[in-house]
Amino acid sequence: MDTPQRPLYAPGALAPLLRPRSIAIVGASDRPGSLGARALANLAGYEGAVFPVSERLSEIAGRRCYPRLSALPEAPDCVVLAIPAAAIETVLAECAAAGARAAVVFASGYAELQTAEGLAAQSALSRIAREADMRLVGPNTTGFANLVTGAHCGFAEFPHGYRPSRGAVAIVSQSGAMGLGLSQAAEHGVSISHVLTAGNSADVDVADFLAALAVEPEVRAVALAFEGVASPERLEEAARAVVAAGKPVAAIKLGRSAAGAAAARWHTASDTGDAARWSDLFARCGIVEVTDLGRLIETAAFLAKGADLPRPTAAPAIAILSSSGGMGILAADAATRHGIATPQPSDGTARALAAHLPAFGSPRNPCDATAQATSNPESLVRCADALLADPRFDALVLPWGKAWVSPCFDALSEVAASHGKPLCLVWMSQWLEGPGAVEAERLEQVSVFRSLDGCMAALRARTLRRD
Amino acid sequence: MDTPQRPLYAPGALAPLLRPRSIAIVGASDRPGSLGARALANLAGYEGAVFPVSERLSEIAGRRCYPRLSALPEAPDCVVLAIPAAAIETVLAECAAAGARAAVVFASGYAELQTAEGLAAQSALSRIAREADMRLVGPNTTGFANLVTGAHCGFAEFPHGYRPSRGAVAIVSQSGAMGLGLSQAAEHGVSISHVLTAGNSADVDVADFLAALAVEPEVRAVALAFEGVASPERLEEAARAVVAAGKPVAAIKLGRSAAGAAAARWHTASDTGDAARWSDLFARCGIVEVTDLGRLIETAAFLAKGADLPRPTAAPAIAILSSSGGMGILAADAATRHGIATPQPSDGTARALAAHLPAFGSPRNPCDATAQATSNPESLVRCADALLADPRFDALVLPWGKAWVSPCFDALSEVAASHGKPLCLVWMSQWLEGPGAVEAERLEQVSVFRSLDGCMAALRARTLRRD
Repeated sequence: MDTPQRPLYAPGALAPLLRPRSIAIVGASDRPGSLGARALANLAGYEGAVFPVSERLSEIAGRRCYPRLSALPEAPDCVVLAIPAAAIETVLAECAAAGARAAVVFASGYAELQTAEGLAAQSALSRIAREADMRLVGPNTTGFANLVTGAHCGFAEFPHGYRPSRGAVAIVSQSGAMGLGLSQAAEHGVSISHVLTAGNSADVDVADFLAALAVEPEVRAVALAFEGVASPERLEEAARAVVAAGKPVAAIKLGRSAAGAAAARWHTASDTGDAARWSDLFARCGIVEVTDLGRLIETAAFLAKGADLPRPTAAPAIAILSSSGGMGILAADAATRHGIATPQPSDGTARALAAHLPAFGSPRNPCDATAQATSNPESLVRCADALLADPRFDALVLPWGKAWVSPCFDALSEVAASHGKPLCLVWMSQWLEGPGAVEAERLEQVSVFRSLDGCMAALRARTLRRD
Repeated sequence: MDTPQRPLYAPGALAPLLRPRSIAIVGASDRPGSLGARALANLAGYEGAVFPVSERLSEIAGRRCYPRLSALPEAPDCVVLAIPAAAIETVLAECAAAGARAAVVFASGYAELQTAEGLAAQSALSRIAREADMRLVGPNTTGFANLVTGAHCGFAEFPHGYRPSRGAVAIVSQSGAMGLGLSQAAEHGVSISHVLTAGNSADVDVADFLAALAVEPEVRAVALAFEGVASPERLEEAARAVVAAGKPVAAIKLGRSAAGAAAARWHTASDTGDAARWSDLFARCGIVEVTDLGRLIETAAFLAKGADLPRPTAAPAIAILSSSGGMGILAADAATRHGIATPQPSDGTARALAAHLPAFGSPRNPCDATAQATSNPESLVRCADALLADPRFDALVLPWGKAWVSPCFDALSEVAASHGKPLCLVWMSQWLEGPGAVEAERLEQVSVFRSLDGCMAALRARTLRRD
């Protein structure tokens, strides 16, 4: 853990990590499954210069190898150290000597051992980086990825060739495994721009990564997961900077419990701090806190899609529209649990609804469009339009009972955009990634949740934001 | 809603519904998408006699049609009425005259309208059924399915040809859409035996369906969702019968809030009753209550897989094993939230763990097997074995960070079985149905959850059961 006293790195200081012009890989390998081979393969979509460094090989997969860092044709922006811990200190010094501006260390066996030797070894790495003004990510990290540019300095298995669409979420995580698990939401259509994992944070930590995202244009919101940081003040400063840049943040704090905090000390040698103080800090900065990991990405994606929408200042009132009466009832129950009102529509809205519903539908709130909405999807769009037009409602929640691609999807997104209010589609089918899941997620103005509680918590948190 | 006074139907009384020897479909059709066509197509895998009834057609898809019920070669066990509301009363009387023992009415426009006419129309149907001692499902229902026999008397789109594997969950739901949405969990490997939806419950209600499952051999646990019943006493009797038969029940009660209760009156004319009294009733019967729909099926599947395992009588203590330190920390946090202890392993267990872990792993609880568990899956099995063997732990929770099929899956299931303790694999990857999801769900002795909170709540509920 580096010194808590140093200031937050300016966003530009992390450019050699997030937007490197060149990447060298020490320990580049052709052995399938090795970290060196995986790290090299992960750069397939990167357009900058790649310099594999190998004492043994002259070429890997068509890329020319260099025997050592000092033999590179130019000073590398970022060096990935895919080598055992025993060689790290020497090679990190060589990075500095070669003029590298950043380095990434995968190896474990440092501060997380909680031994004097482990701490001393990590301090030595910090010192080398600090004295060379070279940014260091790790040790004990899987690396990080800018999925916009393809600059993936790590060995985690992101889908090759993945590129985010508009309105992307950046993931910042101390834990590499958690960063990877979260980023796999991309498989059902969530747009992910960065996966920045910090590991032991001997130099760069999650606060620095967070602050750097303020100037990354593709990022619309951030999902943050961490155990502890050297300086809560630095994290607060970073959070304020990124929120002020119009990029909302959802966060999960690991180690809130005594049992979890003890485990965190064994994991990354982090002092997790007092949970209540962290919650206060989040509230001060306008960070939306979640405790269930599964809700982190969907909450961040919701914040991304709603980043430009006006926010109510009091507890919100919502309309509920469903093709299933039962799911409408559950949604009303969930709203109540989260302090969200579900008032009845105005007389005018009720008349508009009645015009689009069958006689056995319910032109109320919750509005039951009945199973007829399946055969007549346009009626669902007209009802959504009527409910969103009613000033009594701040948002529309649409429990989605069956996995299917509705022909009304695009129209729902357009209707939501035209009213400037969130439309939340809650995927109630237990076919969690069945037909329609990706299509719904990709709608520009529709947010997808996989639980009513997650949806209501996000709607509530969005409106209670203090800033 | 039928009279609250009548006794619960004996399980055998529902045999014409759940195990009919023959099914007639009035309104059978060859028009794609029509209810009559969908109901007929849903009987593709049913081995009993099928009698399509159509005034217009002499044959549909190779099946001989009959012009009217009185023309059938034998009295049908069950008649499906896929016809408009206007004709229902007349045809239901014809069902009785033809000697049918059960009928299913899809049509809407009855008690859920909350008009005198709607209530009277529904009462008329109840009376016809009662006087003929003919069981009636509906009106305002999508029907129901026995997926074991293929007897699907409804128009909902279950996967054709689906058959449950061992240890199946039966779904009982008032709402048809909800029953379908829940049953789609079969798409990621959950074994579903029945989807029994009751609609307006003019005669048969969720209590009768629940009781009937006590004698269905393929059912290992029940997932129950309902708004209200005519008689809570009948539901309690049914719940006691099915639980006494060794089939645990997980339930979600719709309309717990005032807003939800009002919506329920508009949906199926149900009086939802007082939420706290329902919770008391569930506790008395040993029903595990959930409030988040997404947790209903995974909780029921967990109860199914653990139906034969001994249950601790005090709050449980669990071991946590993960290949990601961060996810172990989150699991410890979640356990604490649910009043579940995470004690340290015995010295002997810690030594056994250390023998299977790399130096930077953590032979503690949570046990961090590190990313090495990916390249050496056997180490994960050995650690699971050591933790489950330790009498300090009632169960093992395994947060699973990345979507992948581990070669150790079968061995994990065997280890759990050998110790007679639950092993819960919590799918933390946001690739919710990615590689490994189906394979994990199909493990005989491994329960899959998609959130730590859902897992901990189920573990806690299982052990606090009062009976």
